[in-house]
Amino acid sequence: MNRMPERWTVEIGEAVLGRNAEIAASNRRRFAESGLRVVSIVSSPGSGKTALLERTLSDLRDRTRIGVIVGDLETDNDARRLRGKGAPVVQITTGGYCHLEASMVARALEKLDLADLDLLFIENVGNLVCPAAFDLGEAERVVLLSVTEGEDKPLKYPTIFRNADAVIVTKMDIAEAVGLDREALHASLRQAAPQARAFELSARTGDGMGAWYGYLQGPGSVNLAKSV
Amino acid sequence: MNRMPERWTVEIGEAVLGRNAEIAASNRRRFAESGLRVVSIVSSPGSGKTALLERTLSDLRDRTRIGVIVGDLETDNDARRLRGKGAPVVQITTGGYCHLEASMVARALEKLDLADLDLLFIENVGNLVCPAAFDLGEAERVVLLSVTEGEDKPLKYPTIFRNADAVIVTKMDIAEAVGLDREALHASLRQAAPQARAFELSARTGDGMGAWYGYLQGPGSVNLAKSV
Repeated sequence: MNRMPERWTVEIGEAVLGRNAEIAASNRRRFAESGLRVVSIVSSPGSGKTALLERTLSDLRDRTRIGVIVGDLETDNDARRLRGKGAPVVQITTGGYCHLEASMVARALEKLDLADLDLLFIENVGNLVCPAAFDLGEAERVVLLSVTEGEDKPLKYPTIFRNADAVIVTKMDIAEAVGLDREALHASLRQAAPQARAFELSARTGDGMGAWYGYLQGPGSVNLAKSV
Repeated sequence: MNRMPERWTVEIGEAVLGRNAEIAASNRRRFAESGLRVVSIVSSPGSGKTALLERTLSDLRDRTRIGVIVGDLETDNDARRLRGKGAPVVQITTGGYCHLEASMVARALEKLDLADLDLLFIENVGNLVCPAAFDLGEAERVVLLSVTEGEDKPLKYPTIFRNADAVIVTKMDIAEAVGLDREALHASLRQAAPQARAFELSARTGDGMGAWYGYLQGPGSVNLAKSV
């Protein structure tokens, strides 16, 4: 029979998240010193993160110096897709991790000359759960949601939506074909992400991209929770 | 215009997984030195990992000295459920991580007197993707699959099933009610996990638990890929 006490808790999370927060703050200081605007992009797999970036790089390359850090579990397919658009692209392969961490971004930054950039995108691993807890040091976090994913998706993944600065509804060119209920979707967004700017666009046709570019070239949102 | 080269890859995964493999090997040596059998349990959320353990602890407590390490993103609800069954339970809360890592298990082991145990269960975070890449040092990995999850689940998550030593189909008491196609399920299992022992049981009614106990008290499988 057992003489050991019956129950203990080991709080790995707090230590890990504390360390991540320190490195994220250090990343954020580096971005601020370089006058660099850093926007992270999060979504489910297949919501169109890379397609949005492809179009954005092509359209803005003559006006804005853009860099991209892209995270995937495995393969550098996303970096390959983004290559040749005139922007430096650093691929992070995370192995078993379903999210980026601030330390991974810090390592990727070693490959970039921040003084040569105006805007840095960080494309997270395709996942609506894991990335939510990890601050990367970005100024703004953008969550993508395609019209095929269901109008109630924001309610099912409240954490990631609650912390979004902007939500982009993608693949609007097929909204009618999939029978999107726009009212229901926007009601979900008002409930789950009332703080977020909302955009609807199609990276394929280009419809709606102008508002997104206006957002990127505007003054940027001030997120007090993220300030250093 | 940008003078930086266009593309780099940062392999975080290899370094992380290499370090994890070292710690897992160290855990495995400790288990071997203590003559302790260590079985990890993985599944989607809600497949019945904790229910299986509750029943197993109750039924085997007079014959076998069992300990449990249980991982969750947050809350110690699972440890609370397992408490009072006569076994020491260590809860790991992982914060943002959707899987356990060998280092977390090593920290939890500090709370256990391995010499006082015959059998240690490690209940992983509920997830069929993230845990697949992380060896914990366990001798055997058991994947649970409830009858409500769809007969093709093993084909959709091939990595976790390919590395399973045993697969347990849970909630068999409602198999008929949900219209389980047993032939289709077993065909999926033969394809995705031909190496694994398969069990069907209901922790609620107790049907099928005997074969599971026979497995736990048998000689144990020898997994060459995992030997130190």
